[in-house]
Amino acid sequence: MAENQESKESLSENLQQVIALLDKQKLVEDLVHKQEMPHHDLVESLVHKQNLAKLQQKLDALHPADVADILEALPLEQRLDVWELVKVERDGDILLEVSDAVRQTLIADMNSDELLAAAEQLDTDELADLAPDLPKDVLQDLLDNLDAQNRARLQSALSYSEDAVGAIMDFDIVTIREDITLEVALRYMRRLGSLPDHTDKLFVVDRDEILRGVLPLKLLVVSDLDAIVADVMSDDAVTFHPEDVAEDAAKAFERYDLVTAPVVDASNKLIGRITVDAVMDLIREEAESDMLSMAGLREEEDFFASVWKSVQNRWAWLAINLITALVASRVIGLFEGSIEKIVALAALMPIVAGIGGNSGNQTTTMIVRGLALGQVASHNMQSLITKELGVALLNGLLWGGVLGAIAYALYGNFQLGLVMMAAMTLNLMLAALMGVVIPLYMNKFGRDPAVGSSVLITAVTDSGGFLIFLGLATLFLI
Amino acid sequence: MAENQESKESLSENLQQVIALLDKQKLVEDLVHKQEMPHHDLVESLVHKQNLAKLQQKLDALHPADVADILEALPLEQRLDVWELVKVERDGDILLEVSDAVRQTLIADMNSDELLAAAEQLDTDELADLAPDLPKDVLQDLLDNLDAQNRARLQSALSYSEDAVGAIMDFDIVTIREDITLEVALRYMRRLGSLPDHTDKLFVVDRDEILRGVLPLKLLVVSDLDAIVADVMSDDAVTFHPEDVAEDAAKAFERYDLVTAPVVDASNKLIGRITVDAVMDLIREEAESDMLSMAGLREEEDFFASVWKSVQNRWAWLAINLITALVASRVIGLFEGSIEKIVALAALMPIVAGIGGNSGNQTTTMIVRGLALGQVASHNMQSLITKELGVALLNGLLWGGVLGAIAYALYGNFQLGLVMMAAMTLNLMLAALMGVVIPLYMNKFGRDPAVGSSVLITAVTDSGGFLIFLGLATLFLI
Repeated sequence: MAENQESKESLSENLQQVIALLDKQKLVEDLVHKQEMPHHDLVESLVHKQNLAKLQQKLDALHPADVADILEALPLEQRLDVWELVKVERDGDILLEVSDAVRQTLIADMNSDELLAAAEQLDTDELADLAPDLPKDVLQDLLDNLDAQNRARLQSALSYSEDAVGAIMDFDIVTIREDITLEVALRYMRRLGSLPDHTDKLFVVDRDEILRGVLPLKLLVVSDLDAIVADVMSDDAVTFHPEDVAEDAAKAFERYDLVTAPVVDASNKLIGRITVDAVMDLIREEAESDMLSMAGLREEEDFFASVWKSVQNRWAWLAINLITALVASRVIGLFEGSIEKIVALAALMPIVAGIGGNSGNQTTTMIVRGLALGQVASHNMQSLITKELGVALLNGLLWGGVLGAIAYALYGNFQLGLVMMAAMTLNLMLAALMGVVIPLYMNKFGRDPAVGSSVLITAVTDSGGFLIFLGLATLFLI
Repeated sequence: MAENQESKESLSENLQQVIALLDKQKLVEDLVHKQEMPHHDLVESLVHKQNLAKLQQKLDALHPADVADILEALPLEQRLDVWELVKVERDGDILLEVSDAVRQTLIADMNSDELLAAAEQLDTDELADLAPDLPKDVLQDLLDNLDAQNRARLQSALSYSEDAVGAIMDFDIVTIREDITLEVALRYMRRLGSLPDHTDKLFVVDRDEILRGVLPLKLLVVSDLDAIVADVMSDDAVTFHPEDVAEDAAKAFERYDLVTAPVVDASNKLIGRITVDAVMDLIREEAESDMLSMAGLREEEDFFASVWKSVQNRWAWLAINLITALVASRVIGLFEGSIEKIVALAALMPIVAGIGGNSGNQTTTMIVRGLALGQVASHNMQSLITKELGVALLNGLLWGGVLGAIAYALYGNFQLGLVMMAAMTLNLMLAALMGVVIPLYMNKFGRDPAVGSSVLITAVTDSGGFLIFLGLATLFLI
């Protein structure tokens, strides 16, 4: 990268600088405090102000997204110190860039007037993103301040579910009529003086705002000036409805390499557009949320959230995990008699359970990805299970054999080695079966297979592993 | 979605239809085979041909990306049946869309002539994506067939690492000079007759191809026709070098909402461009590869890969897991004496280990994400550890208390309950510490923290959990 070198090496460097300035600031304050100087002392007013000015200058020079990153990377106290220095007219843009969790900490620090001032800098679609986090009275004030069209837009945007196209669309649409020449269209563009970001096509509508087609700027600049819009425009553009699933729209953007696409209502009336930057944000968020879900985190977490908030975000899966661990423990409890006789069983049983969990998670991760891409569904469940069982059988005989040999070497009991091998093979096969079936069934019943699949698999392979190993041992060794 | 309804509901429906046709086909073949009819029998030649024609028609109507999805979702045999029906001039586009693993199965089914024919349909940058999977002799033939400029481009594209900007750039650049008027520029566009996909800006270069600035089409259509390009263009565009890290370029695209960006060499000479569609593919792939890595899969896997290939993709982490499980088993082995005396220890110890692993994975997943976003680094390691230890302490006392009570209730041993609670708290704190430290140190030493963090954490919390629990029990209960 060349011109934007500065902002590129950014985050860590910017962060260092901001922290250094904050620390200096803290030092001065401590000094003032320690010497019990009055707050309006000369030292404070000079050094303090100089410092603040430097920090503010630094922040003003940064892109809102860069400021957002700095805020996310700072512990709460420092974060709020920095936030107070951000110019109020930039507050809105920065609030849009930070994660939900961090946004809440920032909003909690602002009063109604500050929030209103920040919100007034935003477009309607941006407001819609922010609105759920705003206090009710601020939101009401905001709605009252909007003109009729924007109020209607904001209310309709808020009415769509978070996962719908309506929630990611914006209203920056430029429309033309189909019966004009390109020359007239170009003259109209020049009269407008500027086009919204990402405009790669104009939307062609009739007088009732019904979408007739789209005219890519690319065609506008290469086509004959005397041509009529209707003859040049493409009338089979990909369009979306506001209630479509946003993730499907994202797939269409990837598939058909779109930059913008019109959003129309049931009667094909143009109501907004989706842009590729909203789609990229969505893809990034979806991928992250899948990753977090698989680990049993409810949502993206502020790294410097209070301990209590973090506990809330994580307790649900920990509790489920606790219950499944208890079940596994009770399974072992059933065989306490066998363990008393052959204490080696206690040392070997976690291996069987652990490898099963690991292997089951590999399978599940693949299936969750396949479901997300639409490549896995009930119709190929059968062949997936067959294949995964094959992999498990091979791994089981291979690694189970190795472990059986090790068990034999450690405890000098050949039969124990055989039981070890058999149990590993069976538990790997159980893991394979469940690794395919659990996410597929979760998907079938409308649950997100990424959420907690991993915890469920581990539950089955733990209890199953203990049951199989201790059961076989009790049958053949006791 | 409206106009593209058909392709939207696509994958599962298209797949159903293709499979139905394939099955019919199979039925006819079986019939022919069973009745030992000669292969040129009337039945076959009619029904068979009709069927094939239908299938081919269906495939021809689909977007290459849709055909790619169908190929990925089909088991190998059916996949190759469908592949043979795809028109040779579409082979190249489809090969670009399928995953690496599936691409290899398709290429293995093609002879040199077919591969050459497919490759000839592609642009140089697309060829570069395909080249690593092509047999050496085909690649050589291809290079021989290219003109000097494209050969040089292909060779340089192949020389960049997979993670570099050079590997995702293309050469579809439209350049103009800075001293012409917009009117002249527009006349030049019309003479060109068409612009490459995604062209949202023209690149302004001097006669040595040195980049002087970029002229967004948006500005071209709204500005005064008599204006000079140099006065309208923006000269602080975000630019990249081919050896820049592609993932950083992707972040810049998200941050600065880019659609295309120029790629320049060290002397600022324009050599190519990056487009947002390549960036979206990259984001999707990176996110997937993180998810797969965390589960210990080496790479994206063909769902219908042979059992043997799957075993190869997964064995490394399973083997590591096996070793860590063995270590944990030996830790238990140290305490066999204690277990013989209090067999309840065997039933309770997996709970301590399991909850630790689960909780450590939650922490690690958060940190891996934070590292990817650049929000976590050594400078805030201290405060992250403090916070995570706090969460662990709270969870430990809470859930450890619950489990201690359950242990007391089950085994009537109050001290056992206390040991349980203490062990859980300590192991959760160990998990928290390792959950922060392991990914941070992996990152520091240039390893991808997503790869295997999860396996390492589990290893520590398993062995650690057994050691803490059995150690405390031996100290206080035996």
